[in-house]
Amino acid sequence: MDEKQLLMIPGPTAVPQSILLAGARPMVNHRGPEFKAALDECTRGLKRVFQTSHEMYILTASGTGGLEAAIVNMLSPGDLVLSVSIGVFGDRFADIAETYGARVEKMDFEMGQAADPEQLRTRLSQDSGKEIKAVLITQNETSTGVTNDLAAVGAIVREHGALLLVDGISSLVAMDCQMDAWQIDVLVAGSQKAFMIPPGLCFVAINDRAEAAMKQAKIPRFYFDLGKAKSYLEQGQTPWTPAVPQVFQLQAALKLLEKEGMTDCFGRHARLARATREGVKALGLKLLADEAHASNAVTAVRRPTGVAVADLRKLMREKYGVVLAGGQGTLKDEIFRIGHLGYVGEADVIATLGLLGLGLKELGVDVDPAAGVGAAVSSLGG
Amino acid sequence: MDEKQLLMIPGPTAVPQSILLAGARPMVNHRGPEFKAALDECTRGLKRVFQTSHEMYILTASGTGGLEAAIVNMLSPGDLVLSVSIGVFGDRFADIAETYGARVEKMDFEMGQAADPEQLRTRLSQDSGKEIKAVLITQNETSTGVTNDLAAVGAIVREHGALLLVDGISSLVAMDCQMDAWQIDVLVAGSQKAFMIPPGLCFVAINDRAEAAMKQAKIPRFYFDLGKAKSYLEQGQTPWTPAVPQVFQLQAALKLLEKEGMTDCFGRHARLARATREGVKALGLKLLADEAHASNAVTAVRRPTGVAVADLRKLMREKYGVVLAGGQGTLKDEIFRIGHLGYVGEADVIATLGLLGLGLKELGVDVDPAAGVGAAVSSLGG
Repeated sequence: MDEKQLLMIPGPTAVPQSILLAGARPMVNHRGPEFKAALDECTRGLKRVFQTSHEMYILTASGTGGLEAAIVNMLSPGDLVLSVSIGVFGDRFADIAETYGARVEKMDFEMGQAADPEQLRTRLSQDSGKEIKAVLITQNETSTGVTNDLAAVGAIVREHGALLLVDGISSLVAMDCQMDAWQIDVLVAGSQKAFMIPPGLCFVAINDRAEAAMKQAKIPRFYFDLGKAKSYLEQGQTPWTPAVPQVFQLQAALKLLEKEGMTDCFGRHARLARATREGVKALGLKLLADEAHASNAVTAVRRPTGVAVADLRKLMREKYGVVLAGGQGTLKDEIFRIGHLGYVGEADVIATLGLLGLGLKELGVDVDPAAGVGAAVSSLGG
Repeated sequence: MDEKQLLMIPGPTAVPQSILLAGARPMVNHRGPEFKAALDECTRGLKRVFQTSHEMYILTASGTGGLEAAIVNMLSPGDLVLSVSIGVFGDRFADIAETYGARVEKMDFEMGQAADPEQLRTRLSQDSGKEIKAVLITQNETSTGVTNDLAAVGAIVREHGALLLVDGISSLVAMDCQMDAWQIDVLVAGSQKAFMIPPGLCFVAINDRAEAAMKQAKIPRFYFDLGKAKSYLEQGQTPWTPAVPQVFQLQAALKLLEKEGMTDCFGRHARLARATREGVKALGLKLLADEAHASNAVTAVRRPTGVAVADLRKLMREKYGVVLAGGQGTLKDEIFRIGHLGYVGEADVIATLGLLGLGLKELGVDVDPAAGVGAAVSSLGG
């Protein structure tokens, strides 16, 4: 079966057929009424998902472009920012800030651990001169499968007064993220994760404090200038020609999400993540993440002794059609990752764990290949 | 008929059904073998279209993002650049350079005219200190429907030694553009024009001189960093998650273009453009462009006395399903534009001119409504 694949990576994720076809709608004028209607509907729908009443912009770029938009619209060269990083994507956010001339102070936590809000509180309380302009943090670290406690972080950062810029690329829709209630100033997400649509768009929400900061920010910007995005959005347009198919797909996806309901959607992700973890552990494998902070979007698994990650991924893809992700950065050859976000159901998780058991066995691991799927099914029934 | 539209704007353009559906292929891992194969094929195909043997990068952004990539990868703050502009998009290229700290000297030509290569030669010959680092120019100015003579410009700029950065967003595929033979150093195109695929991608080709310049260029860059694009392309990947559907669509479009042949494709665009101009003139309307330099991609037409552009566009869209573009910048209410690039054939041009005749008549213009379509058909048969 050439085409049949279980795409179990943390993005791009599988896309429902109805959404694939929503992108195949005939092209329209991006400055005409059909596109305006879609953009308006998407902007309103995204605000519900972000749980915000503030401004929301849809940009044609990958998630990294959204992070760049957050940096260049909020900061000036020389600004001190505190980067709280628990992995590759936290580091990337810091790299972008550094590239554009911010002074970046790093607060790194071990891979597999969540950020400690108390350590953040301590550092911010020492900053009596309010030198720190912004705190950068990832809600869900895709490279390690760990989720940070943003409610706690938000309260601490607001007490200090710095801007809180959040990478929510792999978290939005897969887990609760209350932009306004948690006092997040800038929140970035990407289309190709739990939104169930193809890559090509990112979403950037900014609140009033962020909008005020934007007026002072001096990093040069053009393509990612949110001031331009704001003035065009008032006419139902984007400043530059947008990825029209993905906007139509977002419109369709938001309808699916509304039908499921956000609470049920978060519950589904939590249930599938738990079943994945139980299944993996029953196969004798070790999770990278501290389970207290394990992600509902992606599970990172340490490779079993004697098995190369590349070999396992190749076997799983070529023999069983299950596409798994490898590690990133220093974890490249140490872990593999199972994405379970977006258009994923019980069937996908059960199938993946069953086939993972077979794959491990075939690579010489001394394991009952049915142990994982058994534990997963039990977890789903529990 | 709610859906049936003739999308006669200069981008986004109509997309063939087979290409729409190529984008509805199930999602794949952007770091896996299926995507690598598509990216390799697209990169090779684009080099044929650009008529270059040099480096070619596919970025997830609109064409403006590609222009930004050209600027930030080639220049340093303080560099002197000469902007040759004949309209809104030439001005935009200059604005981007200025935003990122270049010193921009403007050489503007009247809207409707092409750039005069001799004026460029004179200015460059005065620059004995070789202060001018780069020349920016648009091959086809979408806002006025005028095409610049890039073969002449290329020779003049190379004689001076400055880099030649070309906006080919609305020209590539619609007209001949010989990157290597014409000595273009950086050439940018966009997916949603004559390539017949939806918006979401831009293409940036750079030659060896540009690659050398990139190593010296000091404008900060991250998302649009072509150095990162180069190192990932060597592995068959893009640095950031790309708009996967549009890459599959590009793959399909390049096959269609190969089947038609580039010479026939340029011929088709020239024939349709000529028929459009003859039809418009036979309706008593005036072209904005100097006909010696009129574009094969888009025709800009002065509004008839007593008719508001907005009224004409509204009538044409709502009554006849023909979507025309308005003017931009200072020409906003003075012209309308007919796009005839990409997936456009004789039938589309004939229908448009026939309906334009009816529309003008209905708005009170004293005209034989059949005159335009008659002239267009004669032109096509001539």
